[in-house]
Amino acid sequence: MPPHLDELMYWIGLSAVAMMAAAGVLEAGRKRFDLFGMIIVALAAALGGGSVRDLLLDRPVFWVVDQTYLIGALSAACTTFFLARFVVLPTRFFLIPDAAGLALFTITGTNAAIAWGAPWLVASFMGVVTGVMGGILRDVLCNEEPLVFKGTLYATAAWTGALILLGLMALDMAGWIAALAAGAVIFLLRLIAIRWEIGLPRFTAKGSRDRP
Amino acid sequence: MPPHLDELMYWIGLSAVAMMAAAGVLEAGRKRFDLFGMIIVALAAALGGGSVRDLLLDRPVFWVVDQTYLIGALSAACTTFFLARFVVLPTRFFLIPDAAGLALFTITGTNAAIAWGAPWLVASFMGVVTGVMGGILRDVLCNEEPLVFKGTLYATAAWTGALILLGLMALDMAGWIAALAAGAVIFLLRLIAIRWEIGLPRFTAKGSRDRP
Amino acid sequence: MPPHLDELMYWIGLSAVAMMAAAGVLEAGRKRFDLFGMIIVALAAALGGGSVRDLLLDRPVFWVVDQTYLIGALSAACTTFFLARFVVLPTRFFLIPDAAGLALFTITGTNAAIAWGAPWLVASFMGVVTGVMGGILRDVLCNEEPLVFKGTLYATAAWTGALILLGLMALDMAGWIAALAAGAVIFLLRLIAIRWEIGLPRFTAKGSRDRP
Repeated sequence: MPPHLDELMYWIGLSAVAMMAAAGVLEAGRKRFDLFGMIIVALAAALGGGSVRDLLLDRPVFWVVDQTYLIGALSAACTTFFLARFVVLPTRFFLIPDAAGLALFTITGTNAAIAWGAPWLVASFMGVVTGVMGGILRDVLCNEEPLVFKGTLYATAAWTGALILLGLMALDMAGWIAALAAGAVIFLLRLIAIRWEIGLPRFTAKGSRDRP
Repeated sequence: MPPHLDELMYWIGLSAVAMMAAAGVLEAGRKRFDLFGMIIVALAAALGGGSVRDLLLDRPVFWVVDQTYLIGALSAACTTFFLARFVVLPTRFFLIPDAAGLALFTITGTNAAIAWGAPWLVASFMGVVTGVMGGILRDVLCNEEPLVFKGTLYATAAWTGALILLGLMALDMAGWIAALAAGAVIFLLRLIAIRWEIGLPRFTAKGSRDRP
Repeated sequence: MPPHLDELMYWIGLSAVAMMAAAGVLEAGRKRFDLFGMIIVALAAALGGGSVRDLLLDRPVFWVVDQTYLIGALSAACTTFFLARFVVLPTRFFLIPDAAGLALFTITGTNAAIAWGAPWLVASFMGVVTGVMGGILRDVLCNEEPLVFKGTLYATAAWTGALILLGLMALDMAGWIAALAAGAVIFLLRLIAIRWEIGLPRFTAKGSRDRP
């Protein structure tokens, strides 16, 4: 890996965590929780995916070891909480950093699972969990149906990228090039899905369960 | 233990996981989630109980170690998702395999907790958690009140069986005979409860909280 | 530490767990769950915070190791379940033991995280998690918005106390005196917040999200 790439990844990850915390506050806005409620929802959105991954792989939870993530998410959540009173912060503004965060979290999650020795399907799924579980926890805490279960392609983009990463590594490509390529696929797929509103098929059932 | 019983248990467990994933898709049907949403709900229903047990006991999570479970649950969920468009799949159809899964999960959960060295009440409770937590997680993800908190005997059957298992083992019965007997009790209690709609008493309070 | 203080803390902790289980049954009362549902909600309220803390710190889960907590919470939940049919049990009655439990759980959670070697902000947050996560899990299981995200000061009192504990310990005060002082602050802050209905600011946003 080229020098400083590790450090660059760290800063991108930290920024993604902060952006996801800020977006979490806006997403949960209609609930009118108080400052603490918003902080917990934001932390769940920003740190939840990586926490579940670390618990499932029995690794030390990343933000417990390095509190920079907690500080970053807390600061972003509080800033957004107070800023939103005076400035219009459109959720749309967060879509691009969120897509970058999805790509990064999925790649790091998949890599962490492979390093741990997880089988390939589990590793790809662990990448998806890292990428999307934060949003699921956020919506569960807000007492809403998870957005990622209904909206435009999100987890699908993550899973595609995770499988591409595994494929490229099976072809003996250098890890960091495979990671960049797969991450770019996730990022672009997500942006394409938002732009043209592409979603997965919804569940429909024949017979008695088909009522509205 | 007689030869091949271990292998038989493995295949029954795998089938139970697949059936629970399929049933999870149907249970969540009225939500009209997309394919990914249904997959996550199905995985939560099928793998959630064992995952919580393994996390609480600090054991490697079973489906992270052996991805056959993940493959089985994913295949069953996707098949059900698409099949339900063309064929009427009544939830009722899944009640018997679900009762078998409840029995199996409760017994393996209790045994795992005993092998870990948990005290008896914790071990029996861990069996119940393994058996019912999947359904609770499924309903939480669907933003509904957990069905197992309200319906016909389910957790009660599991808990009774777990305590019988512990009692028989305290009487020095061979582990696999005790497991078969206790599992049969759970399976039959559950079927009896469904057939005659037997439930636990519901909460009612005297005074101001008694309003409808 | 003076002799017997350890033992005293254990008994206070056990009583707090039992009171929180009883209060959990009453809080969830309007849901009319059955006995098992109420037990699970009560256990989540009483044991949930400590469980999440232990999972995040990768310590053995406290009630799995020592089943006295499970017995205490189960007995309290069942007693409340049946007693509520005949006697009016006002939730208000549980506010003072709940405040004591909040203080105790926060202090022990913070101490556990420090003993584990967590950085200071993580340690204080882990104290808050121990104190409030039970209530959050209870409300998620009841399919409601978490009360602690909206009501009078609760988590704020816990966090203030946790930070005071860390400050006093940084000043080389004896651990048990710092713990008593910080615990008293949490307890009193909580009672003051209840008495004068002091809460945190709620989220309000400028622009399109500001509709009711």
